[in-house]
Amino acid sequence: MSATNPSAEAARLARTDPPGRMMATEIAEQPAILRRILTEGAPRIRGVAREIAARGPRFVLLTARGSSDHAALYAKYLLEIRRGMPCGLSSMSTTTAFGARPDLRDVLVITVSQSGGSPDLVDSTRAARAAGAITLSVTNNPDSSLAAVSEFHIDIMAGPEKALPATKTYTASLLSLHLFVEGLGGGDGSAANVLPDLAERILDRADEVRTLAARYRFAERMVITSRGYGYPTAKEAALKLMETSYIPALAYSGADLMHGPLAMVDNISPVIAVVTDGRGGEALQPVLERLRGRGADLCVIGPASEIMAASAGFALPTEGVAEEVQPLLEILPLQRLAYEIAMARGQDPDAPRALAKITETR
Amino acid sequence: MSATNPSAEAARLARTDPPGRMMATEIAEQPAILRRILTEGAPRIRGVAREIAARGPRFVLLTARGSSDHAALYAKYLLEIRRGMPCGLSSMSTTTAFGARPDLRDVLVITVSQSGGSPDLVDSTRAARAAGAITLSVTNNPDSSLAAVSEFHIDIMAGPEKALPATKTYTASLLSLHLFVEGLGGGDGSAANVLPDLAERILDRADEVRTLAARYRFAERMVITSRGYGYPTAKEAALKLMETSYIPALAYSGADLMHGPLAMVDNISPVIAVVTDGRGGEALQPVLERLRGRGADLCVIGPASEIMAASAGFALPTEGVAEEVQPLLEILPLQRLAYEIAMARGQDPDAPRALAKITETR
Repeated sequence: MSATNPSAEAARLARTDPPGRMMATEIAEQPAILRRILTEGAPRIRGVAREIAARGPRFVLLTARGSSDHAALYAKYLLEIRRGMPCGLSSMSTTTAFGARPDLRDVLVITVSQSGGSPDLVDSTRAARAAGAITLSVTNNPDSSLAAVSEFHIDIMAGPEKALPATKTYTASLLSLHLFVEGLGGGDGSAANVLPDLAERILDRADEVRTLAARYRFAERMVITSRGYGYPTAKEAALKLMETSYIPALAYSGADLMHGPLAMVDNISPVIAVVTDGRGGEALQPVLERLRGRGADLCVIGPASEIMAASAGFALPTEGVAEEVQPLLEILPLQRLAYEIAMARGQDPDAPRALAKITETR
Repeated sequence: MSATNPSAEAARLARTDPPGRMMATEIAEQPAILRRILTEGAPRIRGVAREIAARGPRFVLLTARGSSDHAALYAKYLLEIRRGMPCGLSSMSTTTAFGARPDLRDVLVITVSQSGGSPDLVDSTRAARAAGAITLSVTNNPDSSLAAVSEFHIDIMAGPEKALPATKTYTASLLSLHLFVEGLGGGDGSAANVLPDLAERILDRADEVRTLAARYRFAERMVITSRGYGYPTAKEAALKLMETSYIPALAYSGADLMHGPLAMVDNISPVIAVVTDGRGGEALQPVLERLRGRGADLCVIGPASEIMAASAGFALPTEGVAEEVQPLLEILPLQRLAYEIAMARGQDPDAPRALAKITETR
């Protein structure tokens, strides 16, 4: 395992761009990328889904790290809820460090990776294929080693991502996985057609996010919670905050929050709740009540009606938007929030210290 | 979802025990409980394993929350590495909130819960059984609703646990799951026979842990990392620290740490590394080098040789101890560490604010 810290440092010192320029640009590209996937990408994704459905996989294992791991978790919810397929997230070291060789007949192994270049992902995918799995990789680089070793490949078509925190490749992965999972059931994924316009409207509201950022500029820790489809959003938002602002941000499903970490939440630990408009948001209500009862500073990302009962929030246009595609909208203000807090703290969100874009873990 | 906060508050106010008395007592009981499981419990656990092995499950889903979720993660590593069985951790809301009804033929569903009383675990286990799964519950209460709805049950025999942070039920779950997974392959799990004596020796070294606690008394955040079998230990230690000391403690696998959160680690974020003596520890070496290179304050829980290169540590007697059973030893000094830090901060580890022993999530 290694990450090329010295070159990231050098790159940071050499750049003449103003801080945050790349991350801001890439966040803004998202509506156009979603449109591109829906028009140019969708037919090919549906084709891959048809071929894989014909093979009749019974279980799915998802393999990824970092932001891609959150995209994989989103896919897990989709596969379980929309397709009724039992799923697991791989513990990669079991194959790469311990040499486990599970029996993977009837198993679909989906590997998600922006770069498609991390050696451990390539190795574990190769091993899965040798063990009888149907292998699918989802990457932003069709020429990557990962795409080459996988039987099937989906290109997320996000274009080169230069800022270190993943933004556009995250939403592009989510949309590609949504189209794939709907395609497995013969659907066209048309619930996503509303997303590009709505994403544009959300990203136009930068001032509102700047106001929220002022609220958290001096926060020493944050808790982010959600349930159902919004849980991957909570995890991804926590990672964004940590890698740009270095705020220890802890993501919990609402149910897990009640099993211990709640002791840590009080009036000095602000909580961000991602309230999906639908069954996930309903299941979160008792947690929200509990947090309000403790006097927690609660910021809601969700429908306007939920923000009324909170301390602050960012209203999402969720009316008529299927619950399963709302995560593509929920993450947008949170990406901007991480960017704005980092800028307010005088940090450069494009090049967090110590990180390189392609993390080579083995 | 609900947790009976008022009664926990009342219990805390009514108690006359000195703070931390129950947690300290239960930590100390562990060697005796491990002995009891190895003698009285093991034959029945092997019997359950034989019956389940005869049914030929091909895939395992593990369901749990809180500390039991970390025990489930330990079982996932065992099942994948020792038995070559693909595994997943359940996202419970997919069945309880979204009504997903996956096809669970050939699937073993293992539900781990100290109390066996949480309604969502009972509901999801009942639903899994109806969907064709082989169901096994692992609890500290054979008379619980969860045990009743499961086809098979393993009693972890830890005796009543009164302190809110789980300690003895965690190690009892780990040992029971180890014996079960070895039993699935026809083994007797004798690698665990050395544990009770070693656990006693470790728990005798309270002074060493008190010295470590002084180091972290004023820490505002902590990062805990590991790889392989030690990763569940890292997650469980983070939970213990959060629920007793309210320190935001972030647990990452070494590989995930490189994908973003490393930006947060510097000379003000101490890192605890759980270095298992074996392949997991080897896979963690590049992460340790990287952390040392960043000047991180690094505390190692692991073999004495690893502590030499760190800032501090607690040496574990791992010589001749099979890698897969080391997590039962690794967690012991970390339970004590959480206890000591809470005491040093003037908090009562027996009854963290806001928590109830049986968390009723729905």
